[in-house]
Amino acid sequence: MIMFWLFLKIIIYYKPMTTQNLLENHRTIRKYSSKEIDKATLSKMLIAGIRASNTGNMQLYSIVVTQGKEEKQRLAPAHFNQPMVTEAPLVLTICADVNRFSIWCKEREAVPGFDNFQSFITAAIDAILVAQNIVISAEAMGLGACYLGTTSYTADKIIEILDLPRGVIPITTLTIGYPAETPDLTDRLPLEAVVHYEKYENYTSDKIDDFYKEKEQIKDYKEFIKENNKKTLAQVFTDIRYPKENSDKFSEVLIETLKRQGFM
Amino acid sequence: MIMFWLFLKIIIYYKPMTTQNLLENHRTIRKYSSKEIDKATLSKMLIAGIRASNTGNMQLYSIVVTQGKEEKQRLAPAHFNQPMVTEAPLVLTICADVNRFSIWCKEREAVPGFDNFQSFITAAIDAILVAQNIVISAEAMGLGACYLGTTSYTADKIIEILDLPRGVIPITTLTIGYPAETPDLTDRLPLEAVVHYEKYENYTSDKIDDFYKEKEQIKDYKEFIKENNKKTLAQVFTDIRYPKENSDKFSEVLIETLKRQGFM
Repeated sequence: MIMFWLFLKIIIYYKPMTTQNLLENHRTIRKYSSKEIDKATLSKMLIAGIRASNTGNMQLYSIVVTQGKEEKQRLAPAHFNQPMVTEAPLVLTICADVNRFSIWCKEREAVPGFDNFQSFITAAIDAILVAQNIVISAEAMGLGACYLGTTSYTADKIIEILDLPRGVIPITTLTIGYPAETPDLTDRLPLEAVVHYEKYENYTSDKIDDFYKEKEQIKDYKEFIKENNKKTLAQVFTDIRYPKENSDKFSEVLIETLKRQGFM
Repeated sequence: MIMFWLFLKIIIYYKPMTTQNLLENHRTIRKYSSKEIDKATLSKMLIAGIRASNTGNMQLYSIVVTQGKEEKQRLAPAHFNQPMVTEAPLVLTICADVNRFSIWCKEREAVPGFDNFQSFITAAIDAILVAQNIVISAEAMGLGACYLGTTSYTADKIIEILDLPRGVIPITTLTIGYPAETPDLTDRLPLEAVVHYEKYENYTSDKIDDFYKEKEQIKDYKEFIKENNKKTLAQVFTDIRYPKENSDKFSEVLIETLKRQGFM
């Protein structure tokens, strides 16, 4: 009878997080506990990463693992010194990489033709698929992660720091660790705002009002507008967070870097 | 006592697929049963998609759902008439989209600055994160998916077919359905081949031999070489599957398309 109740309890309490729940409850984690990530855990993440779909099974990507304190400090400025880089136990720089595959081709009497923009796009897509599988695997093991968008702004500097040869370019960076914060779920536009059926239906003024209504009512965003002395939330994005002059400047640097790495 | 055994059986047989298992067992599915995908299932996938990380929560992406027979037939040539496009119950074209966000900015007295290459990269990364979450959600519900790399080759044609306005460009396409095949797990290079610690360690001839040894022993690949009258597996990639002249040509088209859509 005791056994019976024990089993009953196990069944009631053993509700594993389903994959769908995991995906729907994703939070970016920027603060990490001091707990280290052991080798087996890192391996599981990386294996999940390389099992993602990839073009022609060429695996046109590389993952650079940064765990050393000094190495993280060297990377930090390339990520505008966001504290996650030095505070996370694990930093992964995920790169588009046609170098390894091209060397293999040359070693096997084949002439590689991956020094072009399509190969960059292909490799970049594959790199991001690896990154997202790593994030999901990490989250399934109770870890948290943060994507660093700074990677494409300072790809040229990261190339130097990590010794990336021609044919390799960093696409994104993940900081990973055990969470020391439990942020709220961030808002999203209603599904209808981003999904189109059969054809793209362009956005009328009314539709925009409708789709952005909820976002524009969020208290934190309203404070954000006030703090920044702006009239609208959109102005916070265009004037403070993503000003055109920055994007234009970083675009030039990235295109130059793509040329230098042999992708254009 | 009967109850006891019942519970015991439930515990023994109720081994849900963990997320890690799901990721490690990913197979691309190209053949689908005739079973339709209901609205609730599609919704779950799309919700999982938009919960993925995205830059600044700007959601610079759109998903075009294709389910109509005629509409699938119109898309098929853009994917070189691969049978998945017309045979799958569901085709999703995942696009980088700065159009919606830019319209919102203009409607809110803000001057958007997303007509540049950085914004394309940002939006493309976010689009791929959406795509991979959709794939994982689909697989968790017993569906199977295939990424179509043809999307970046024929982005210009897809733009026409789906009526994509300036500021929108297709990044990848997914065909999704209930599997009518159970393919083997595809090979991968050993983890050490794609992972670097602290710095990128370039590949010596010996390392390449070592890392590609297993792949080069696979029977199917050996037959592939013979069928194509080639000397090495690498030659199958460079001469048959991804010849330089194609990649160069498609690169030009893609860069032109990026310019036309306002990303360069």
